[in-house]
Amino acid sequence: MKTNIVTISREFGSGGRTVGKELADKLGWEYYDKEIIKQVSIASGLNEEFIEKNGEYAPTNSLLSYIFSARNGTPGVMNGLSIDDFLWAVQVKVINEIAEKGNCVIVGRCADYILRDREDCLNVFIHASMAARADRIVRLYGESDQTPEKRLEDKDKKRKVYCKRHTDRDWGMAQNYNLSLDSGKIGIESCVEYIAKLVDEIE
Amino acid sequence: MKTNIVTISREFGSGGRTVGKELADKLGWEYYDKEIIKQVSIASGLNEEFIEKNGEYAPTNSLLSYIFSARNGTPGVMNGLSIDDFLWAVQVKVINEIAEKGNCVIVGRCADYILRDREDCLNVFIHASMAARADRIVRLYGESDQTPEKRLEDKDKKRKVYCKRHTDRDWGMAQNYNLSLDSGKIGIESCVEYIAKLVDEIE
Repeated sequence: MKTNIVTISREFGSGGRTVGKELADKLGWEYYDKEIIKQVSIASGLNEEFIEKNGEYAPTNSLLSYIFSARNGTPGVMNGLSIDDFLWAVQVKVINEIAEKGNCVIVGRCADYILRDREDCLNVFIHASMAARADRIVRLYGESDQTPEKRLEDKDKKRKVYCKRHTDRDWGMAQNYNLSLDSGKIGIESCVEYIAKLVDEIE
Repeated sequence: MKTNIVTISREFGSGGRTVGKELADKLGWEYYDKEIIKQVSIASGLNEEFIEKNGEYAPTNSLLSYIFSARNGTPGVMNGLSIDDFLWAVQVKVINEIAEKGNCVIVGRCADYILRDREDCLNVFIHASMAARADRIVRLYGESDQTPEKRLEDKDKKRKVYCKRHTDRDWGMAQNYNLSLDSGKIGIESCVEYIAKLVDEIE
């Protein structure tokens, strides 16, 4: 079946977001990343900062997040769900709606899992070695108190826990994607080109 | 660094071996698969059938294998190692020697892990959905008493255990390879073409 949607899951610092943006430009497709956060915020009443932090990562300070983020009812509980599950349910709905429109690249937010039954979806995972990612995040986001390796390990761990909790999948397993690319070894350009080629090729 | 070696790890039934063969043909490189078994047999004194069964899969009937396969000394123990560890040690040696010659495609046998410190190595994982693999193994190897799904599950499980035991890695994790391709979705031809392109491109 012809590909109408590309989902990009990525390791923090791997350049997966850049791959997604450049791919969308190349294909002339819509690009969804921050836009998803905006739509989830409107649909849920939760603020964008909270969604950005909790929409892909396992929360570290749940109690605090619950109290400060809940804006439309009892803190921590919405429609009988915990905020975490409520946020997930809204995210599923928003991503399914986006997918219905087609011709789009969706970065992150377990879109590969949410859209797993759609055959018009090409699921991509972008990763890179610790060294390549450490180099990239220092270049892009500057230094911080933590070493870049520690920052990456923390992010990796939180995404892993989040993924397991909502999808019961082990994050980063090749079998969950149609292709997984090491952007450090292969280069961002080659990643973009090959994905675009597959979108054209796959019938 | 220029690529001199491609390792192909693969799920049983994914066509990874075919990808490896066609890639070697395309590049004009040596192809190592059964040849490794032959070399390990010569270096170890163990017979080829035993190596084929135990060089990638966790043994299910270790005691029996030990008794019937050991041809040069006390059954089950060689050079102070269990046969399993002895076989691994010989395999490591043989694969390192093959890699030294360069310009080769090596299929299976944890070559990606054994050669992990070589920067001239491109590590590929070929996988496919259960349905695509079931279809392929019935087409290639015919029916058997077990359903194709059961045969695949057994093979997957044994490779997973073998990989964990010798490499302490989770088999199939995208991060262990430079690229992982779903041959069912992408097609064997496209896999071969893209890997060959990367071999040319990566400096």
